[in-house]
Amino acid sequence: MGFTPRGFLGDKPSKAPPLFPFLLTFLLVGSRGDSNAMDNVSTERLAEESHRQDSANLLIFITLLTLTILTIWLFKHRRFRFLHETGLAMIYGVLVGVILRFGVHVPQNMSDVILGCAVNNSPATLLVNVSGRFYEYTLKGEVSRGKGHQVQDDEMLRKVTFDPEVFFNILLPPIIFHAGYSLKRRHFFRNIGSILAYAFVGTVISCFVIGLIMYGFVSFMKAVGQLGGDFFFTDCLFFGAIVSATDPVTVLAIFNELKVDVDLYALLFGESVLNDAVAIVLSSVLLRLEKQGRRGAGAVSSPGDGGPVWPQGEEGWLAENQTFAPRSIVAYQPAGDNSHSFEAMAMLKSFGIFLGVFSGSFALGVATGFMTALVTKFTKLRDFPLLETALFFLMSWSTFLLAEACGFTGVVAVLFCGITQAHYTFNNLSPDSQDRTKQLFELLNFLAENFIFSYMGLTLFSFQSHVFNPLFIFGAFLAVFLGRAANIYPLSFLLNLGRKNKIGSKFQHVMMFAGLRGAMTFALSIRDTATYARQMMFSTTLLIVFFTVWICGGGTTPMLSFMSIPVGVDSDQDSPQNSAVLDGSQRRDTKHESAWPFRIWYNFDHNYLKPLLTHSGPPLTATLPTCCGPLARCLTSPQAYENEGRLFDDDSDSILNDATVSSMYADVTVSTDASGRTVNRSSGTRGPSDDCVDHDLALAEHEVAIRGTRLVLPVDDPVEPPTTVTLPSPPSPPGSEPRRQRL
Amino acid sequence: MGFTPRGFLGDKPSKAPPLFPFLLTFLLVGSRGDSNAMDNVSTERLAEESHRQDSANLLIFITLLTLTILTIWLFKHRRFRFLHETGLAMIYGVLVGVILRFGVHVPQNMSDVILGCAVNNSPATLLVNVSGRFYEYTLKGEVSRGKGHQVQDDEMLRKVTFDPEVFFNILLPPIIFHAGYSLKRRHFFRNIGSILAYAFVGTVISCFVIGLIMYGFVSFMKAVGQLGGDFFFTDCLFFGAIVSATDPVTVLAIFNELKVDVDLYALLFGESVLNDAVAIVLSSVLLRLEKQGRRGAGAVSSPGDGGPVWPQGEEGWLAENQTFAPRSIVAYQPAGDNSHSFEAMAMLKSFGIFLGVFSGSFALGVATGFMTALVTKFTKLRDFPLLETALFFLMSWSTFLLAEACGFTGVVAVLFCGITQAHYTFNNLSPDSQDRTKQLFELLNFLAENFIFSYMGLTLFSFQSHVFNPLFIFGAFLAVFLGRAANIYPLSFLLNLGRKNKIGSKFQHVMMFAGLRGAMTFALSIRDTATYARQMMFSTTLLIVFFTVWICGGGTTPMLSFMSIPVGVDSDQDSPQNSAVLDGSQRRDTKHESAWPFRIWYNFDHNYLKPLLTHSGPPLTATLPTCCGPLARCLTSPQAYENEGRLFDDDSDSILNDATVSSMYADVTVSTDASGRTVNRSSGTRGPSDDCVDHDLALAEHEVAIRGTRLVLPVDDPVEPPTTVTLPSPPSPPGSEPRRQRL
Repeated sequence: MGFTPRGFLGDKPSKAPPLFPFLLTFLLVGSRGDSNAMDNVSTERLAEESHRQDSANLLIFITLLTLTILTIWLFKHRRFRFLHETGLAMIYGVLVGVILRFGVHVPQNMSDVILGCAVNNSPATLLVNVSGRFYEYTLKGEVSRGKGHQVQDDEMLRKVTFDPEVFFNILLPPIIFHAGYSLKRRHFFRNIGSILAYAFVGTVISCFVIGLIMYGFVSFMKAVGQLGGDFFFTDCLFFGAIVSATDPVTVLAIFNELKVDVDLYALLFGESVLNDAVAIVLSSVLLRLEKQGRRGAGAVSSPGDGGPVWPQGEEGWLAENQTFAPRSIVAYQPAGDNSHSFEAMAMLKSFGIFLGVFSGSFALGVATGFMTALVTKFTKLRDFPLLETALFFLMSWSTFLLAEACGFTGVVAVLFCGITQAHYTFNNLSPDSQDRTKQLFELLNFLAENFIFSYMGLTLFSFQSHVFNPLFIFGAFLAVFLGRAANIYPLSFLLNLGRKNKIGSKFQHVMMFAGLRGAMTFALSIRDTATYARQMMFSTTLLIVFFTVWICGGGTTPMLSFMSIPVGVDSDQDSPQNSAVLDGSQRRDTKHESAWPFRIWYNFDHNYLKPLLTHSGPPLTATLPTCCGPLARCLTSPQAYENEGRLFDDDSDSILNDATVSSMYADVTVSTDASGRTVNRSSGTRGPSDDCVDHDLALAEHEVAIRGTRLVLPVDDPVEPPTTVTLPSPPSPPGSEPRRQRL
Repeated sequence: MGFTPRGFLGDKPSKAPPLFPFLLTFLLVGSRGDSNAMDNVSTERLAEESHRQDSANLLIFITLLTLTILTIWLFKHRRFRFLHETGLAMIYGVLVGVILRFGVHVPQNMSDVILGCAVNNSPATLLVNVSGRFYEYTLKGEVSRGKGHQVQDDEMLRKVTFDPEVFFNILLPPIIFHAGYSLKRRHFFRNIGSILAYAFVGTVISCFVIGLIMYGFVSFMKAVGQLGGDFFFTDCLFFGAIVSATDPVTVLAIFNELKVDVDLYALLFGESVLNDAVAIVLSSVLLRLEKQGRRGAGAVSSPGDGGPVWPQGEEGWLAENQTFAPRSIVAYQPAGDNSHSFEAMAMLKSFGIFLGVFSGSFALGVATGFMTALVTKFTKLRDFPLLETALFFLMSWSTFLLAEACGFTGVVAVLFCGITQAHYTFNNLSPDSQDRTKQLFELLNFLAENFIFSYMGLTLFSFQSHVFNPLFIFGAFLAVFLGRAANIYPLSFLLNLGRKNKIGSKFQHVMMFAGLRGAMTFALSIRDTATYARQMMFSTTLLIVFFTVWICGGGTTPMLSFMSIPVGVDSDQDSPQNSAVLDGSQRRDTKHESAWPFRIWYNFDHNYLKPLLTHSGPPLTATLPTCCGPLARCLTSPQAYENEGRLFDDDSDSILNDATVSSMYADVTVSTDASGRTVNRSSGTRGPSDDCVDHDLALAEHEVAIRGTRLVLPVDDPVEPPTTVTLPSPPSPPGSEPRRQRL
């Protein structure tokens, strides 16, 4: 095609007409024919060609996933356990990446014709006028600097590289929703304090520790001349944020399979799910901070520029204080006068933004969950499982979109939406829809997860702008290790001061070891790979993910046996050591452990939210003040009255703040009893011929057996309602054993 | 922003430097600030803004779908039947379209900055150099001529308009796959001859009749000066092709609900599924023809231009014969010498391409189905339903991608893949996966379908370039009516000459009336709306779809009662009139009806394919010649041997070419009996506590009852195997009653 890479990199021809008020360089490469003959034929051809190429690329991934599935089956069939499916997906990805990189040479053809057109703005939409016909182009992203001539050479590899937004908008939401939907809420809420501490305080600590260590390393690299580009302090913090997100996938699958202690499981799962959310918000705040800094540097802040993302009017809040561009790491301190007040202000504002984004996303997710619960409660949509499932799916998805459209974080909203859906909406669904939604999200989660890990493997070789710096990589591994240590050990010490059920040192070591980095870290780091710093971060992150998934993930089983942590503990027992004496005293521990905010919340939930949003719980007419009578009658479902007598014991019981956990069970029992067909299911899960739920079935039966032995023991808690004895289903039905089903 | 639409439409400034070898017009609108201050900040802002806008747009559709679901529920709840859910989705779409068009005024902001840059080529990728940074733009499509200044004004509406490829690549495949997967193969294959006649011959007839009538109308419009642009004869044919695709959704849902005669149902369903495929291939061939014609017009046929899509080297086959641009409809006859030989050649070549594409797509779909069947047969993946479902999903999807990557038609491939999967792979799946796959595709189909219909409604107002020409619309409605008549009545007459079970005149009227146009017609017409002709076609098509869905769809029930066609007929009876005397003679009719190609196929399928691909059928060692012994032993599953004794009767029976249909039943029975857990399911569906399949359950029980009464009658066919009496499940389990579940 006679493509000339020389003229491509934006050299400004001196013949540019001076009448144009701005820089214009325009290079058209590979065109031929007179303009009169131009038609849309060639464009259609190109679009067709491009479409076929896209299909082929997607096909590569589908084939990869298929291979992964078959190998997973083989591993499970032969009971290999040293490598998890995600690790496997990565290996296949790496293999295909190597083949694409070194094995395949795609000859250049017409579809690669690239118009180089240099202007001083890059709008989202570009209209190209070809002899009177207008073609619309949309902004895809920035091509890394200095790589312009390589773009052409590595067309194939570049095409395989997805738009990073795909990860955030398509692949992550189902994973995160599934995590929330299948959360074991009972164990989660029992350890909620510790989990929040690890997730919020711990992640922030880890972020800053890693950031500071990396800052030291980068300064050293700068000093010895090892740094090939800019690297700011915010970059270091950003790196800290993204590698602080631990992955809930791999280790937990192993933990679930091996039936490791249930508290350890809850802590790790809760932490890794929530710290994903924290890391997202943290990194987006840092990104905002950095952007504002950079915006302050240039004078680009045109008035109409974008809508205000943050209504609190921080528009230009850094620009006011900072007028000098931080073009290198040592020059990060702004040259303006009030630099320290700026730091403090920025810190405070960041914290405010962090809180705003997090609570906004949280509220949005919960609100959508409530709405779905109300809709499913009042419409009797349960007669049509297909409609119900579709509605559930759409509402859950709309949470994500709504949050993104409002400028909140969709992934965080989806997490809390999942928890809310599981807690309320799930009880309103028909049994058929309960299975369908569970299976649907399980499948979506499985596909998305393995896709991401395959893609990670592929990226190691297909990504064009890797920057592997040995010193930086060494520093990053060290920082990640120390950051994790600074998260786990001090916090565990502090938490043990307050906890009755201490987190033992062995557990701490396991938590330390099991801090894998996975999909979220990858997605956050691939989001922006435009600058040198980001490219180095991305490459290093990839190595960290590979190392932790393969080494730490594979080493978990040996680690557990080395630590002599008991495996094979049933996850529905309250504690590993006393399987036979789980009576009131144990429950009082539990109750004690969950402190007063939790108790207040529980009472509120049980008395007002559950009756409002589901068919279960005491009727609102009983719990609301009499002045709200008509409203309460209107909102209470008929089923609630039927169970009023039975429930009232339970109700008063929980008002007495006793036997909290057991009344939670009772609550769920009634909820399944209350609504016609659900009774069927509760008893149906015991029947031997239920095909759809036969995996759950085995577990449910198991649980019934265990709960049975537990509850027929003499209870020393006189207020405990007798109804609890009969209940068959666990309190978190939606995906109570999500991992085990897969294994 | 000071946007000036005047300078936008590609006027060439005389100051353009003569050194550039080609036409260059470059207009940058709305830029400010000096180039030095340019950063990627504003780009990131814009991308963020654009992302939020996209989220909001998608949210509109999700809300629409949610509303539709709720209203569908209300309709079902109140037993309204006059409007199908698809019609409902369209109404909501229209409402939102009206609101967006007239109610919402989005103030212009920075994100609308548009660079107008006029060159003489429009490659798939455009690189823009902004002060040394490169931004990549991808071709989105052509903006309609003369509308350049409106683009700016209707940013919001334009954003709501999706990329048409989304329909083809994301929304249509699940719909078509579901149609294939849930096909009632028994009734389908019994009427296969008639269905193929209607679908292939009928669609071609309809296409040409409509094309010719439209050609007449357009010529008339040209004569009276009503035509505002070019309209070629190929455009007329293309229009004929796209409006010949009848929709399998709406009427069939009603038919299924009302339990109309099963042969009528099979004919309509089979025809509408297959003629979608025919219409796709036909229209793509016509498009190719037209493109070639246009390419011949200009001198743009650069040698490296795209890869050869058709390996048979038709590259330029029109260009050789035709040198004059057909710039108006009256000038369509090429000005060259051998015009008539060209027509014949083009016709012949078109037919060749048609056959090539169709058979290629068919082969590809079947091949993927076979592969999936083999994989599920030999891996025992059935122990892990999640993996199995994922594999099934991925393999089915890969069919589509593979076909598109090879240049075949993905939708056609996916249809036959679905049929193959249902016929072979489904039998290998675990019961859990059978339910999961069925439910998954049911959900995907439901969502995609309603999304398309919502979108159709929205497009009526949001699409920017509608061309409503009353004369053309009148002509189109007339042509569609006559085209349908020319398809149904003559073909029915001819088919009745050969059929024993005649297609009555009432049935013909219903088939005539029930030829709704839906998703496929829409998707085909929105694929390209660049030219005046295409825009007029698109607008008219939209009206045709609206009319047929609302009027014909809503009028089906009155129509049936007016025609006094019996409703409430059970779909698993062979014929409406004789429910008690369904014995051998009736079956012989059936056998007679399915002619010798079908019998040969059936024997081949039963003796070789089924044993090879599933666990059922006679062992290959018994059917293959002895020389293939080792291979046969290797490929036969252990279960097949177990059933050898039982099957042999059945086998010899079918070799005798007798009781074909009943041995088809027997075959399936054994297939479900043969494989361990499947037996469980067959009997499980009778149990009253099976939640997941309770919709199927009622039907299955019903069928068992009916089949039972039928088969205990004295059979006058002595070779009929006794095993057939016991079978519980219908031969097409995957989605045997897909519509009824939804209603």
